[in-house]
Amino acid sequence: MSDLKANVGYYVAVHVGAGYHGKNKEREYKAAMKNACRAAAEQLRSGGSASNAVESAIRVLEDSPATNAGIGSNLNRLGLVECDASIMSSQPDGFGAIGASTAAHAVLRNYCKGPDPSTGLVPPMFLVGEGADSWATGNGVATDRCSRHKITEEALSKYSRYMDRISTSGESSKVAGSSEDVDLQMDTVGAVCIDRWGEVSAGVSSGGIALKLPGRVGEAAMFGCGCWAEKTVSKVDPRETLSTGCSVTGTGEQIMRTLLARDCAQRDGDIFSVLSECFENFNSTRSLAVFKQRSAGLILLRKVCDGSDGAELGVAHTTHSMGYGYMSEAMSQPVAKISRKSEASDTTVSAIRL
Amino acid sequence: MSDLKANVGYYVAVHVGAGYHGKNKEREYKAAMKNACRAAAEQLRSGGSASNAVESAIRVLEDSPATNAGIGSNLNRLGLVECDASIMSSQPDGFGAIGASTAAHAVLRNYCKGPDPSTGLVPPMFLVGEGADSWATGNGVATDRCSRHKITEEALSKYSRYMDRISTSGESSKVAGSSEDVDLQMDTVGAVCIDRWGEVSAGVSSGGIALKLPGRVGEAAMFGCGCWAEKTVSKVDPRETLSTGCSVTGTGEQIMRTLLARDCAQRDGDIFSVLSECFENFNSTRSLAVFKQRSAGLILLRKVCDGSDGAELGVAHTTHSMGYGYMSEAMSQPVAKISRKSEASDTTVSAIRL
Repeated sequence: MSDLKANVGYYVAVHVGAGYHGKNKEREYKAAMKNACRAAAEQLRSGGSASNAVESAIRVLEDSPATNAGIGSNLNRLGLVECDASIMSSQPDGFGAIGASTAAHAVLRNYCKGPDPSTGLVPPMFLVGEGADSWATGNGVATDRCSRHKITEEALSKYSRYMDRISTSGESSKVAGSSEDVDLQMDTVGAVCIDRWGEVSAGVSSGGIALKLPGRVGEAAMFGCGCWAEKTVSKVDPRETLSTGCSVTGTGEQIMRTLLARDCAQRDGDIFSVLSECFENFNSTRSLAVFKQRSAGLILLRKVCDGSDGAELGVAHTTHSMGYGYMSEAMSQPVAKISRKSEASDTTVSAIRL
Repeated sequence: MSDLKANVGYYVAVHVGAGYHGKNKEREYKAAMKNACRAAAEQLRSGGSASNAVESAIRVLEDSPATNAGIGSNLNRLGLVECDASIMSSQPDGFGAIGASTAAHAVLRNYCKGPDPSTGLVPPMFLVGEGADSWATGNGVATDRCSRHKITEEALSKYSRYMDRISTSGESSKVAGSSEDVDLQMDTVGAVCIDRWGEVSAGVSSGGIALKLPGRVGEAAMFGCGCWAEKTVSKVDPRETLSTGCSVTGTGEQIMRTLLARDCAQRDGDIFSVLSECFENFNSTRSLAVFKQRSAGLILLRKVCDGSDGAELGVAHTTHSMGYGYMSEAMSQPVAKISRKSEASDTTVSAIRL
């Protein structure tokens, strides 16, 4: 370990999903993302772990009623909130996921303790439904961001509008697919953080697709799909390590089928090529032929820990827009942007040096 | 398509999990596996799809009270049955999974229909808990294999015995880990079928680990973890296709972390090397360091569709034993075996020509 080169500074990236972000809410999205970056940076500055920083950032994004996560989540077919969330980290090395609450980090912490010494029972990696809620409550984790008392007026009015259309049905009454309603597909907020020691954590949280069937689990809770975080030894110099974290958003069924977070995080090459190839693959995957439109977006944060400063952030999306933000130890203020799709190509890709 | 070489004959492989199979139940396991092979073969003989055949085989295995799936499932911490199951197929190309019922094939069929034409809504790939049950009932799928009325005497007595030990606790009262109780870890039944056209389907079904937390989802419901089925164009001759199916069993959290089904199915090489390398990787995965014991097993069925007869079946397990069975169109009777671990190595690997 003592041979390994040190990291310099910490890095934070966040997103508010790939989908359709109306101009009228742009300020709100950006403010939420900047606050999320600041909350994560504050954790990392004061010696908190990368996964604590990810949890802090995601909590801020969930608390914003503009996002489809926590407060403001889309409602399912029964008019209820059911959230999916997961977190993965390099230290402790683990994964935790939950459907129907926001307690994923608590599942990860519990999972990392390993089998119970007195009973030998393996702690769960993934909990869903009422079982997840009871466990979270029993372990002192607040799940009130997803309770029915936190349904927003806007989510409720959207729900009623769509349910009306479903009941009147007919060819002209599509719920999803028209640009006006493309925010139905907007799924997930997320964050990736790398601490001063090069440990990396990534997380996602989502209210899921509006009008989803009760019990439907999306990519945000699925291992390898919604987020990935990994610290590996560099192929170039064994004294160097590479920290990689990725957080994904879009149509869950498409992202699950392609294990998109893992696929993207484990590719080699410069960040622009990695994102281009990953989305070329996503856009041409034969097993997604059943879908007319492919909707996905992601942030990919990478840092070579070779004693030098600097990290790379990549952002890619196939959707109309994607909101992302970032901050590093060297920056006095966070940056937040809404990337809008260039008409020329299937996928919009940006690479930023931090 | 007309350039593609035809397949000859159908192939069926099944398993009753990797774990500990007592000698006293060996006959019962073998009988269930032979019946499962016959049920799948009957489907394939009469022109049924590979996924219909997988469903038929798994139903027979679930109906056997000896297996930890369907009837006879382990009970969770509250004394209830919660089943995980999934199925993946090359034709129609899809995946369906369910937690808390056995309706995975119905989810796959529904998923393969694609987005609803009138509403544009995406059908779910994965449903859990009460939502899954309601959906299954609403779609005419029987879920009674997992109902509380089907709890067996044996599952109930095991539950009471373990719960007593948990409440008395103490170092000497391990619930799992001792060889006597290693069937706690025995997880999942499964099947892989290849039809006369080389289409392949694989499935798994599991009652999960005994005393699991309510809401815990295991590998049997997770994409890429519990099963994999894929038909690809051969790298050797583009007129040939390769059908590969895999069904996995063991400790869910370890299998999820390594995406074991996909990892095994997508490796190149002869079947013995593929299994050896896959398990060498599994046994040395750093992220599983938290577990003292690694428990997994799988069946891998492969067929080169080059106009010739014959397929390959591989079986591997790290556990005390694993039960598997197989049948092909050329065989008049199925074969069923309990493979017992050779003390010499971490993993027992067998390769069989069908």
